[in-house]
Amino acid sequence: MDRKALINQIRLKKSFLCIGLDTDINKIPKHLLELNDPVFEFNKQIIDATKDFCVAYKINTAFYESRGVKGWESLVKTWQYLPKDCFSIADAKRGDIGNTSEMYASAFFDEASSAMSFDSITVAPYMGADSVKPFLKFKDKWVILLALTSNDGSKDFQNLSVGSEMLFETVIQKAGEWAGDEQMMFVVGATRGEAFLNIRKYAPEHFLLVPGVGAQGGSLEEVCKYGMTKDCGLLVNSSRAVIYASAGQDFAEKAKEEAMKVQKEMEIVLETVF
Amino acid sequence: MDRKALINQIRLKKSFLCIGLDTDINKIPKHLLELNDPVFEFNKQIIDATKDFCVAYKINTAFYESRGVKGWESLVKTWQYLPKDCFSIADAKRGDIGNTSEMYASAFFDEASSAMSFDSITVAPYMGADSVKPFLKFKDKWVILLALTSNDGSKDFQNLSVGSEMLFETVIQKAGEWAGDEQMMFVVGATRGEAFLNIRKYAPEHFLLVPGVGAQGGSLEEVCKYGMTKDCGLLVNSSRAVIYASAGQDFAEKAKEEAMKVQKEMEIVLETVF
Repeated sequence: MDRKALINQIRLKKSFLCIGLDTDINKIPKHLLELNDPVFEFNKQIIDATKDFCVAYKINTAFYESRGVKGWESLVKTWQYLPKDCFSIADAKRGDIGNTSEMYASAFFDEASSAMSFDSITVAPYMGADSVKPFLKFKDKWVILLALTSNDGSKDFQNLSVGSEMLFETVIQKAGEWAGDEQMMFVVGATRGEAFLNIRKYAPEHFLLVPGVGAQGGSLEEVCKYGMTKDCGLLVNSSRAVIYASAGQDFAEKAKEEAMKVQKEMEIVLETVF
Repeated sequence: MDRKALINQIRLKKSFLCIGLDTDINKIPKHLLELNDPVFEFNKQIIDATKDFCVAYKINTAFYESRGVKGWESLVKTWQYLPKDCFSIADAKRGDIGNTSEMYASAFFDEASSAMSFDSITVAPYMGADSVKPFLKFKDKWVILLALTSNDGSKDFQNLSVGSEMLFETVIQKAGEWAGDEQMMFVVGATRGEAFLNIRKYAPEHFLLVPGVGAQGGSLEEVCKYGMTKDCGLLVNSSRAVIYASAGQDFAEKAKEEAMKVQKEMEIVLETVF
């Protein structure tokens, strides 16, 4: 999905919500456990219930890998079930030397090779240019590069001073040499609203993937105040607050209510820019 | 496998060779392609041929993920086939917020969950302490943290000045707060022999995983000169030079010859320390 199509979806659905399918078999409703693939069945019902209120789904691959081959089967089936008008994110935090990143790109972008073709993948920047560029060879596929994450550990390295900047700012600047805002987004943690001011100096038009609204404690208002552009420029993720809104038979209905609630908040904000 | 057992294996086999199973289905001998799981059959024969000459196997997960579910099956079967007296490395370059890193730890360390339990995993440091610590909760399991990698892109961030140090030096120092040399190793690229002098200031006793000897152009002599400790302190990896020593029917025999050649060089060096 290209940038224009993504913006179009945001306009159509009046939403920039991304739903994170961090599906933990130990947290899904117990009645699903009798089914053949409980994780996929959970995802399927969550997707059916929420797809009108979000523009993106982010699949956290760790939750699938943790269950070995069975988990990877659930991952593939979930990707295949995602509505094609939703932007899909493999939240995989990959990155390695060139020939290895090519293999990771095949894993998440090349359907002929892996039976999956996400629109985007999250990538860790530590290994530099040649660890990122192999993903950019795929047309209309995106790298979502880690810049400033929302966890405590982000302070350890991302906030270190490198000359007159912080490391995460240097990462964003450097990444500008590898791709423009048609193929590159950045992960920016939502728990620090004012951080977006700095980010927008270096990435005025880029889309930013914002985790940490909801369960991780960020505020949608702050994010929009400091981070929104004339094209929206934001994908705000909610995982646990939506998908685990209820642990009962009504989990999908409650997830829908939660997604709808966030979408309504987003609709109000979007009226100020579109 | 704990540190003592690893050092013991190095003494016994007179080798600190790690063989990288970066198994690419497009590069393995054509006669294997008729078999049910060509990648596993290739790995099996490589392992049988080389296990007396190396102390570790490193499985590059990207090469398996690129083939989707089939690839993940080959990965699990390969781990299960690894000799238990060899140190096993999941070269996965993972790292995410705490609850997600816990899932990655389950994927590679918890056999009950994923049918695999490697001795160690490579981890990217960018997200800091809470992205690394979940892996350290497992007894006798190791984190091999990316410090200085051997690719061109390593210059982009790893070599940046952070105060009076370079970023990779800060990473090594900071990691010392999370674990000692009984559970933490560092990836240090072999193409820069003198870089080991600096590394040893910060990590005098840690084992270092050294990629890039052979196909990537590093010199074993340089690595040992600057990096070796009284306990050896090195695992030197060779992937392509060993596993693709021949593309014919004799691939396993040629891999054995190559592994033996490197082991003989290592034996000579080890005589100077043990």
